Amino acid sequence: MSEEKERLPGAEQPAGAGSAAGAEQPSGAAQRDFLARQRGSFDPALLLAGLRNGDRNSLARALTLVESDRLEHRKLARQVLEACLREKTTATAHASLRIGITGVPGVGKSTFIESLGMMLINAGHRVGVMAVDPSSEKSGGSILGDKTRMEKLAAHESAFIRPSPARGTLGGVADRTREHILLFEAAGYDVVMVETVGVGQSETAVHGMVDCFLLLLLPGAGDELQGIKRGIVEMADLLVVNKSDGDFEKRAVETQRDYERALHLFPPTESGWVPPVLRCSSTIQNGMSVVLEKLLAFRDAMHTGGHFARRRQEQAGSWLHEAIRDGLSAGFYANPAIRRALAEEETAVRAGNVHPLQAAERLLERFRER
Amino acid sequence: MSEEKERLPGAEQPAGAGSAAGAEQPSGAAQRDFLARQRGSFDPALLLAGLRNGDRNSLARALTLVESDRLEHRKLARQVLEACLREKTTATAHASLRIGITGVPGVGKSTFIESLGMMLINAGHRVGVMAVDPSSEKSGGSILGDKTRMEKLAAHESAFIRPSPARGTLGGVADRTREHILLFEAAGYDVVMVETVGVGQSETAVHGMVDCFLLLLLPGAGDELQGIKRGIVEMADLLVVNKSDGDFEKRAVETQRDYERALHLFPPTESGWVPPVLRCSSTIQNGMSVVLEKLLAFRDAMHTGGHFARRRQEQAGSWLHEAIRDGLSAGFYANPAIRRALAEEETAVRAGNVHPLQAAERLLERFRER
Repeated sequence: MSEEKERLPGAEQPAGAGSAAGAEQPSGAAQRDFLARQRGSFDPALLLAGLRNGDRNSLARALTLVESDRLEHRKLARQVLEACLREKTTATAHASLRIGITGVPGVGKSTFIESLGMMLINAGHRVGVMAVDPSSEKSGGSILGDKTRMEKLAAHESAFIRPSPARGTLGGVADRTREHILLFEAAGYDVVMVETVGVGQSETAVHGMVDCFLLLLLPGAGDELQGIKRGIVEMADLLVVNKSDGDFEKRAVETQRDYERALHLFPPTESGWVPPVLRCSSTIQNGMSVVLEKLLAFRDAMHTGGHFARRRQEQAGSWLHEAIRDGLSAGFYANPAIRRALAEEETAVRAGNVHPLQAAERLLERFRER
Repeated sequence: MSEEKERLPGAEQPAGAGSAAGAEQPSGAAQRDFLARQRGSFDPALLLAGLRNGDRNSLARALTLVESDRLEHRKLARQVLEACLREKTTATAHASLRIGITGVPGVGKSTFIESLGMMLINAGHRVGVMAVDPSSEKSGGSILGDKTRMEKLAAHESAFIRPSPARGTLGGVADRTREHILLFEAAGYDVVMVETVGVGQSETAVHGMVDCFLLLLLPGAGDELQGIKRGIVEMADLLVVNKSDGDFEKRAVETQRDYERALHLFPPTESGWVPPVLRCSSTIQNGMSVVLEKLLAFRDAMHTGGHFARRRQEQAGSWLHEAIRDGLSAGFYANPAIRRALAEEETAVRAGNVHPLQAAERLLERFRER
């Protein structure tokens, strides 16, 4: 996406008003001019005004801003995010619903999200959607083809779909995804869906940033689940067997029963919520209203018990501590001398010749002495 | 346990030979004398010699030494542990088997461990046992009473039972448990069982330090599992329904079938091993030989596929990186000024007023500036 295309329609007029970027002299080379405009387009005050008005371009630009690794962008991004956080009263913050949706490629995530999203829009909500795994595009959506992916939802003015950022590290994706959620909410999207493909560690990360975690299943016995990481089933608040239509319906019923039985053997969730196993066909729109009903029932139950607010507070606290630990590790692992020493120590440790704690202590000592 | 009681029988003779403690003048107050003797009893060379001979007192003292938080003790402990690591050839290291055993209080862990332990001893093994959760003593063993807990095993010369260290932080327990395993192996215990109670985070930690993770289940539907943390079932390499005798047998058969069906729905383990669900009564010694058989089959399968060595290498590598991260965090969180600032930031973050990344950055900056 080019910055030009994303620029706020009225960005030119208020330039220079209150922003450091605008304070620069407008004279100079074309490149300087372009950079100034670009910086202007990331002006926190303008972005915030746009977000408050639900302006799509502002949202797109804000999402792009928080994805940037450039130090100046990170600073601007945090100004925007802090303002978003401060403006939200507890009431509006908790009025939103963040849903994680996962399932193997081919389970029909896109169709399901589109179907659920349209129902939520018809019920008066505004829906934001983002994907965390870039891989989901490759294998997952290929059945329907990329062009028809959430076509109706993508065209609707009450929906905003953000494709997955192509990032290397999960940590980065996770952080930015959390920030994206805040921006979506600031722009008035009160339902935010985060799609993951169920093969990596993304699910654990996403589970730590949503209110409700929904697992889509294929009809048929467990063999189809080979792509799903162990432990994901137990994180689910809602399980939905998709593609329950035509020839698949009988198998879908069996799968539903199998999972109901299996889940009964697992310990209850902290809140006492019993994850239901539902069945639907998002293609022929069958069973989707029950999915929506259960989703809202889950949300209400969490609110009633106070678990909703508690979960969000805990997620914010975890994010802080994770960020601290990540920051400490980043400083350590970025040090070239440390990296060389670490490679040697690690080989010896893995071979069983050196005690891990001894190696760690030597490396930490070296790091502190720098 | 008093140091006096634990002292190596011949500790007096070689005092002063090579050890720093022994180099001190023996004249002085009784207390100085006692301290010198005590330090002498932690002499790495003596401890190692004792461990090599399979001396029980040396093992007990080495276990105590690595539990100590005193800096001088930590240094001595690492000397001992590094020597243990260096002496072990890859062959002998892999000849050992580390088993994690978990289950809710009342599932019969002690009886099970005693029964399995005696079978292993009869097959020529030497068996070390330790508990990780102090809580397991309180609620778990109370049915049989503490005195009869693993009575036969405790009295056997080929077994060594170490009660749980009473520690606050899990991190500490986990580290020390890993070190205890090394000491047990150095003293010739080729099977080491680590018992946890299944309610805390200990299981994940223990899973990261054993070769085989065994979950004990009660006969009856999932309701009894309320105490077990979600996710533990999926970590198990072996599941065993205990107390399958008398009136419970019918329910045990049902439970076994239920879990077999449920596990079928879960994705396979990385190694391709399918965790079997067994049934036994450790009280009347029924079905225990099948448990032993499957346990050894698991070990052999892991060795054949190379998973055994790989898992150990990965565990050692993880330990190193965990130790680095823990060390970095410890330095950060131990700082009084940081702790005060953190408390304020955390409150604001949890209330949703401050962006976690912003708060983290401020705190990290402050920490670096010290």
